Amino acid sequence: KKNFFLIAGPCVVESEELVMEVADTVSGICRNLGIPYVFKASYRKANRTSAGSFTGIGDDNGLALIKKVGEKYKLPTTSDIHAHDEAAPAAKYVDILQIPAFLCRQTDILVAAAETGKIVNVKKGQFLSGPAMKFAVDKIRRAGNEKIVLTERGTTFGYQDLVVDYRNIPWMQEHGTPVVMDCTHSLQQPNQTSGVTGGNPQLIGTIAKAAVATGADGLFIETHPNPAIAKSDGANMLRLDLLKGLLEQLVRLRKVASDY
Amino acid sequence: KKNFFLIAGPCVVESEELVMEVADTVSGICRNLGIPYVFKASYRKANRTSAGSFTGIGDDNGLALIKKVGEKYKLPTTSDIHAHDEAAPAAKYVDILQIPAFLCRQTDILVAAAETGKIVNVKKGQFLSGPAMKFAVDKIRRAGNEKIVLTERGTTFGYQDLVVDYRNIPWMQEHGTPVVMDCTHSLQQPNQTSGVTGGNPQLIGTIAKAAVATGADGLFIETHPNPAIAKSDGANMLRLDLLKGLLEQLVRLRKVASDY
Amino acid sequence: KKNFFLIAGPCVVESEELVMEVADTVSGICRNLGIPYVFKASYRKANRTSAGSFTGIGDDNGLALIKKVGEKYKLPTTSDIHAHDEAAPAAKYVDILQIPAFLCRQTDILVAAAETGKIVNVKKGQFLSGPAMKFAVDKIRRAGNEKIVLTERGTTFGYQDLVVDYRNIPWMQEHGTPVVMDCTHSLQQPNQTSGVTGGNPQLIGTIAKAAVATGADGLFIETHPNPAIAKSDGANMLRLDLLKGLLEQLVRLRKVASDY
Amino acid sequence: KKNFFLIAGPCVVESEELVMEVADTVSGICRNLGIPYVFKASYRKANRTSAGSFTGIGDDNGLALIKKVGEKYKLPTTSDIHAHDEAAPAAKYVDILQIPAFLCRQTDILVAAAETGKIVNVKKGQFLSGPAMKFAVDKIRRAGNEKIVLTERGTTFGYQDLVVDYRNIPWMQEHGTPVVMDCTHSLQQPNQTSGVTGGNPQLIGTIAKAAVATGADGLFIETHPNPAIAKSDGANMLRLDLLKGLLEQLVRLRKVASDY
Repeated sequence: KKNFFLIAGPCVVESEELVMEVADTVSGICRNLGIPYVFKASYRKANRTSAGSFTGIGDDNGLALIKKVGEKYKLPTTSDIHAHDEAAPAAKYVDILQIPAFLCRQTDILVAAAETGKIVNVKKGQFLSGPAMKFAVDKIRRAGNEKIVLTERGTTFGYQDLVVDYRNIPWMQEHGTPVVMDCTHSLQQPNQTSGVTGGNPQLIGTIAKAAVATGADGLFIETHPNPAIAKSDGANMLRLDLLKGLLEQLVRLRKVASDY
Repeated sequence: KKNFFLIAGPCVVESEELVMEVADTVSGICRNLGIPYVFKASYRKANRTSAGSFTGIGDDNGLALIKKVGEKYKLPTTSDIHAHDEAAPAAKYVDILQIPAFLCRQTDILVAAAETGKIVNVKKGQFLSGPAMKFAVDKIRRAGNEKIVLTERGTTFGYQDLVVDYRNIPWMQEHGTPVVMDCTHSLQQPNQTSGVTGGNPQLIGTIAKAAVATGADGLFIETHPNPAIAKSDGANMLRLDLLKGLLEQLVRLRKVASDY
Repeated sequence: KKNFFLIAGPCVVESEELVMEVADTVSGICRNLGIPYVFKASYRKANRTSAGSFTGIGDDNGLALIKKVGEKYKLPTTSDIHAHDEAAPAAKYVDILQIPAFLCRQTDILVAAAETGKIVNVKKGQFLSGPAMKFAVDKIRRAGNEKIVLTERGTTFGYQDLVVDYRNIPWMQEHGTPVVMDCTHSLQQPNQTSGVTGGNPQLIGTIAKAAVATGADGLFIETHPNPAIAKSDGANMLRLDLLKGLLEQLVRLRKVASDY
Repeated sequence: KKNFFLIAGPCVVESEELVMEVADTVSGICRNLGIPYVFKASYRKANRTSAGSFTGIGDDNGLALIKKVGEKYKLPTTSDIHAHDEAAPAAKYVDILQIPAFLCRQTDILVAAAETGKIVNVKKGQFLSGPAMKFAVDKIRRAGNEKIVLTERGTTFGYQDLVVDYRNIPWMQEHGTPVVMDCTHSLQQPNQTSGVTGGNPQLIGTIAKAAVATGADGLFIETHPNPAIAKSDGANMLRLDLLKGLLEQLVRLRKVASDY
């Protein structure tokens, strides 16, 4: 009960093979470590920097595969939606609707997600403070939904870097919601001239440990067996075979941190 | 031909009386000063900080009034859209579709706007660099539309402030598009604990002069006869009776600047 | 051996009574917890925002009291110096010379400190990255001194806020030096219109826990029996009676973190 | 009387030949354009990123050459000082003492400079707001000197970039001092892994035009006949043969701007 939960999976549904491999490995690790696990994958990437980037295998195909993973491994699932009209369809397949950081101020999408009755996980915009996420929470509550999660994923720090401000963990917990640290997107290096967002995956452990120590309720980690060939966010994801060792450390840290 | 153009109006369509008063005054000033004028008002505010804030008089009512203004004063018009499915309906009423800064990375809305064949004005996200707006431009061009405008509206600078980086004017002009300076939203003070974005309207002249001097092709200024009672962005708008004096100065500056 | 060390004390030498009270309390706590403790106080404040602020009781008096504390409680001591010509005199009284963050790029002060043969603790400038501290380290090494400590104390984040970037802990450790987290100055709120730097002392625990979890070698905490009446940095210091509880948590966290 | 003044010269005194060439060229241009001209060069670089970088030809040699330039071309001169004990010696040679941005909070150096009776030009720290420069001004005034100039040179914006916030021009003018825009250092790209600060000299015109349009009283431009071989700040300086064309544009802009 005192452990953190984990939202993890590949950035995007590339293939059935991929999502099953990741879910199989991660669910096994989490079962052993007593970590509640939510499978995550995007069924579409709607805000790729560059128009030529891979965006998915088709929404219905992607959503169906996510649902299949959930059923096979008995896992709750989540995916991000990208406009108000995606909330209801996606809610048929997943348990948690994730609102992308760029969209966290869009009232329509927050309300549509809220109205599905599903858990709504809102990522903090790179341009927003933790205290200001109160207003996103209020919009969802006004729409009659109290099942809200907030996720920190870094804040704009010059054009080509993000910084994680750990004050946002206690600040967002004051809104009465669990707070998740997105350990992989927080390390993005945006606005690269190549049109491909960069990253710093060797620092995922640093970001995660600080989050657990400061009381984050959950962690979000994108992982892939071979990030170098991933079709999205390859620069940020954790190599799947490194996940077990990291989680073992984090669980021990959590035991101490949760005694506070 | 060498003058800058002006996109101006009240933040939101509050009433027919208001939009007519603003259009009447601004179009008169611009006619005298030789400034091409585009009437702007939002038919809905979709990303208000706070759920309780005013969002509009109804989309159809708002759009119809914008169109009426355009017909009465023979002005091109613009309004912002907030999701891909608003592009086609809004395009029936306005000449320029404006993409909000928070949404500048959403491929769906950019493509939907592009496909209307209207001019698309994309505001640079507070989290984006001017060079990275190349990718927004590319998405619109790939959708077959070359009529693109880019607008600078400030960049995240700590949580409660924005800063205008004038390097973005030449950097965005390199994408082959006209570049507009949004002189009022650039002065916002976001993330206030009150849930009401603050501002610095006494600095509108500073922002505008620097923009004209550095070669901005257009200016965007929200204006209202009485900002203190405005239903949105009251902290940022220019008082309508101050617009004439400011534009006179800017036109003189432009004459010198355009000789370079 | 595996514990973190602590640099702590009141911001400035206000009086003999104060420094003795703090040293007595903190050294007692640290002895019990097995934390190597370095007593810190400034003998002069040389960069107060406002000219009217308290700057000290005289350099010689301040330094003599710091030395007296060290002798009485058998503690190593540290103080900050403010110009190259203070290095040699201060080195007669203290064991570690601290270089203020604003001065971390000044070659003269770094070399003068290095040449005393004392340990040199350089605070990372608010305008500097952790990797760029390599050049400060190099300047000290070229002057023949290998006893170097680096301290993170937050980075400029807009005008009125600082943010702690925990990536700087591993990044600075790559320079081959111990890295300290300054848990109190990191929470400053600079550039307040009052001319008095603000703070967020309720977040000291958040900053410290994240530092220990990410492997910081030492912590720096300013503490005072009654911060409300302190003559400097009252807005940031930890109330002395809260230190014990915090350190107990941190020591437990460290035990887990150092197993990695 | 209504023109801006110019502080210009090579970054550092490399040789007599260099300073004479620059002074000869720039003073000729400024005489023709009616621009009051102050010759600037550093007699020493005291905060080079890297210990191995060139720091000067010796303080006395450097200062003597600056004085010689002033006498030969009948120009006021300026140089930066780096510690309180350099104020009095440097004041024997130059007319304006410049306080480096990193040192703008150091009370000792401000007071020492003030007490020479010379004009004191304080660069705004990269970590400071324009309004907060009030406290630097107060320290100098309290020391009995009213001859103060403030210079904007960019603000920390992530680790590897600076941004110029033009709001600082009117904000600093409220302190009752002339305000200068440093058009070359504002374009630095600090914290490069090479240990050599980068730059963007092609944007010098953009920075300068915005400064003149927003009412800056003076401009600061480092210039060199061949920046590629300069011994400091080669990445930022304006090529000497480009200065005339730029100043001609700026003088015309100023004529319009000063009519406001």
